[in-house]
Amino acid sequence: MKILKPDFAKRGGVIPVIVQDVNSGIVLMLAYTNEECFLETIASGDAVYYSTSRQERWKKGETSGNTQRVRYMYIDCDNDALIYKVEQKGEGACHTGALSCFFRTIGGNKGYSGGPIMKYDESSFFQMPVVRIGWLVVDQMSV
Amino acid sequence: MKILKPDFAKRGGVIPVIVQDVNSGIVLMLAYTNEECFLETIASGDAVYYSTSRQERWKKGETSGNTQRVRYMYIDCDNDALIYKVEQKGEGACHTGALSCFFRTIGGNKGYSGGPIMKYDESSFFQMPVVRIGWLVVDQMSV
Repeated sequence: MKILKPDFAKRGGVIPVIVQDVNSGIVLMLAYTNEECFLETIASGDAVYYSTSRQERWKKGETSGNTQRVRYMYIDCDNDALIYKVEQKGEGACHTGALSCFFRTIGGNKGYSGGPIMKYDESSFFQMPVVRIGWLVVDQMSV
Repeated sequence: MKILKPDFAKRGGVIPVIVQDVNSGIVLMLAYTNEECFLETIASGDAVYYSTSRQERWKKGETSGNTQRVRYMYIDCDNDALIYKVEQKGEGACHTGALSCFFRTIGGNKGYSGGPIMKYDESSFFQMPVVRIGWLVVDQMSV
């Protein structure tokens, strides 16, 4: 067995964390962590991230109660990205109330010269319809 | 319908992309993109990323043949992270030959004062055994 650590230094001390629901595999959010918050997560079992906007420690759910219990961790081939598979407490991971922060879809219109067209839907994760725009079928309901 | 674009400027022009297998939901890799590479992906349907190490455009699979056909795109609540759900061509997404770049697991040993212990296994994704270290059960086989 080798002892490894995530290579925080490689990205200025902060690396991305892909957060997946442990049961469904749905990607709930993309967060960031530094070494201190990573070690706190290891020690407590509850997800603690680093807020890049506020530039401070961010215990997920500390205010909302929607904490995340980390069940599995993975590290990628070059040690600068993580996956946490979590049990999401409460109604969801997103501050909007949605289960996943990725509740909006992008539809690309092939050949459209003005750049991508994106369908924006404020409705919640579960109410979002399947829509077809150009060559992309968009549907957050599938895992 | 509103027209939205990812907020590339928010993170210095480059934002992360979570890449999932469209069928299994397995997270294959974490990549990055800028506006130019994002627009090329929209236009062609094949994943084109921005290599943060080489600081240049990176057409996934251009050398290996392991290209990725983008079937769905999602954007997160604050417009600075994307998910691509892709059809992965060839044997996998990782340069090591593994299906997923996240073929290694991290086991945290609660109470261990020296920081996290990580189990490192060079074997491929599919050969990786389930191991239990401390309070974390690690198993890349689950989605």
